[in-house]
Amino acid sequence: MEKIVVIGLGLIGGSLALDLKQRIECKVYGIDQNPEHIKKAKALGIIDDEIDFSEIKNASVVIIAVPVDIIPKVATEVLNVVSEDTLVFDVGSVKNNICVAIEKHPKRKNYVAAHPLAGTEFSGPEAAILNLFDNKVNILCESDKCDWKILDKALSLFKKLNMRIKMMNPVEHDRHIAYVSHLSHVSSFMLGKTVLEIEKNEQAIFDMASTGFASTVRLAKSSATTWTPIFLQNKENLIRSLEEYIKNLNEFKEMIETGNSEALTETMKSTNYIKTILNGIK
Amino acid sequence: MEKIVVIGLGLIGGSLALDLKQRIECKVYGIDQNPEHIKKAKALGIIDDEIDFSEIKNASVVIIAVPVDIIPKVATEVLNVVSEDTLVFDVGSVKNNICVAIEKHPKRKNYVAAHPLAGTEFSGPEAAILNLFDNKVNILCESDKCDWKILDKALSLFKKLNMRIKMMNPVEHDRHIAYVSHLSHVSSFMLGKTVLEIEKNEQAIFDMASTGFASTVRLAKSSATTWTPIFLQNKENLIRSLEEYIKNLNEFKEMIETGNSEALTETMKSTNYIKTILNGIK
Repeated sequence: MEKIVVIGLGLIGGSLALDLKQRIECKVYGIDQNPEHIKKAKALGIIDDEIDFSEIKNASVVIIAVPVDIIPKVATEVLNVVSEDTLVFDVGSVKNNICVAIEKHPKRKNYVAAHPLAGTEFSGPEAAILNLFDNKVNILCESDKCDWKILDKALSLFKKLNMRIKMMNPVEHDRHIAYVSHLSHVSSFMLGKTVLEIEKNEQAIFDMASTGFASTVRLAKSSATTWTPIFLQNKENLIRSLEEYIKNLNEFKEMIETGNSEALTETMKSTNYIKTILNGIK
Repeated sequence: MEKIVVIGLGLIGGSLALDLKQRIECKVYGIDQNPEHIKKAKALGIIDDEIDFSEIKNASVVIIAVPVDIIPKVATEVLNVVSEDTLVFDVGSVKNNICVAIEKHPKRKNYVAAHPLAGTEFSGPEAAILNLFDNKVNILCESDKCDWKILDKALSLFKKLNMRIKMMNPVEHDRHIAYVSHLSHVSSFMLGKTVLEIEKNEQAIFDMASTGFASTVRLAKSSATTWTPIFLQNKENLIRSLEEYIKNLNEFKEMIETGNSEALTETMKSTNYIKTILNGIK
């Protein structure tokens, strides 16, 4: 019987716990600095029980699912106490800071830096759902620094969750994910903010929201507690992507102002190419 | 047996034709300046037959579903020839220009300026689908200028399509829709453009696209032929909304640059309020 400890019982940690309990012979224990989260996670059957940090030493797996800014600290503390055979992995959305922070830790080889590309716009233990990770890509960074048995254990576990594994350099990961995930969140949050500011008359939003707005603004429902640290941890990449986004918006605005229908059509037509790429997604 | 003529056999015109054929005892005839659209619409059973513009005189209903910039011209030409009893309506996404263009037409009372808030990111007759309009809001502008029997005929038809009817001033409509629909489209198109420019390595987008990117960029698949005229016809409102959007993006970028986590969190938390509004949508 595996002893699995999940630190951070939010959407991702909670969903991992739910799936692991169904798919692996294990007991899942939870740690969360918010006592309400522990209570809810127990009530919802997400964890079997809570556990004190002092008792994680003999865990077979420790999963770190806390906000990205505190992952380096928690990762170090966990590595300090776990056994030689414990698999430790995190699920943070920014990877380089974490890889750097644990680089010289004597138990570096026990650590798998992972980023499962899965989630919803909801948060907290009550957002945890079954089967969240099936067929989703899980990016592993610097897996060559793991002990091969630890890595193999991680791969077995990820495959029980039906994840597709992709190895990636953490610097590359952070650069790509700034464009493909973090920028989408900023764009959506600011769309929500802009519309809320103008539409003091809420009924008008309510009535007119089936016009593509609902899907484009979906990510603006996401948790600020999760996303503030992500944006700050991936600051440089995100700033660069935002500058390019704003530049493109300004250019497009100018095309509208000058009534340049050819340039508008050409820009949109070439952007339609995103269809071809996204259609490939299973 | 009603004789319904649909001018413009794209996503909206085609979907209206499909539903009307199922729900009303009628023959649906199509007009489209693209002979390929006529051929496809016939092959797909969207229309019963094509018809020449000279034969629309005795139609009971004429639906104008062409790009918004040519609606005023087509609307005038249609009103010039139809009978006293013909209901004419358009489904354009910008309403004031159209209302102004037909304001003094002797058959103004035959015209209902409508905007069904329904659609997908696809286009052309092959994008036409059944039941697209069920439970969607249909905004009618200046309906007080319609003959009551004509308006009542329109309401009967819209109710067969299970639409919810909302009356709105066309100036108000264009201002609201700039924020709630047109801005979403620009934001999504520019997100797609920014990511495509950077991610020369397509595989990376493909692999990482389950992270909210796919839903946020969905509207960037939309037809340039449809959207260029919409953006230009609603230029002033859209420019204003874009300026506010860009201003918000710049402010958010500065919060990230200066590491102002309090301001970031506060901004996102207050934007989360969009959840409450969108949750009300049936």
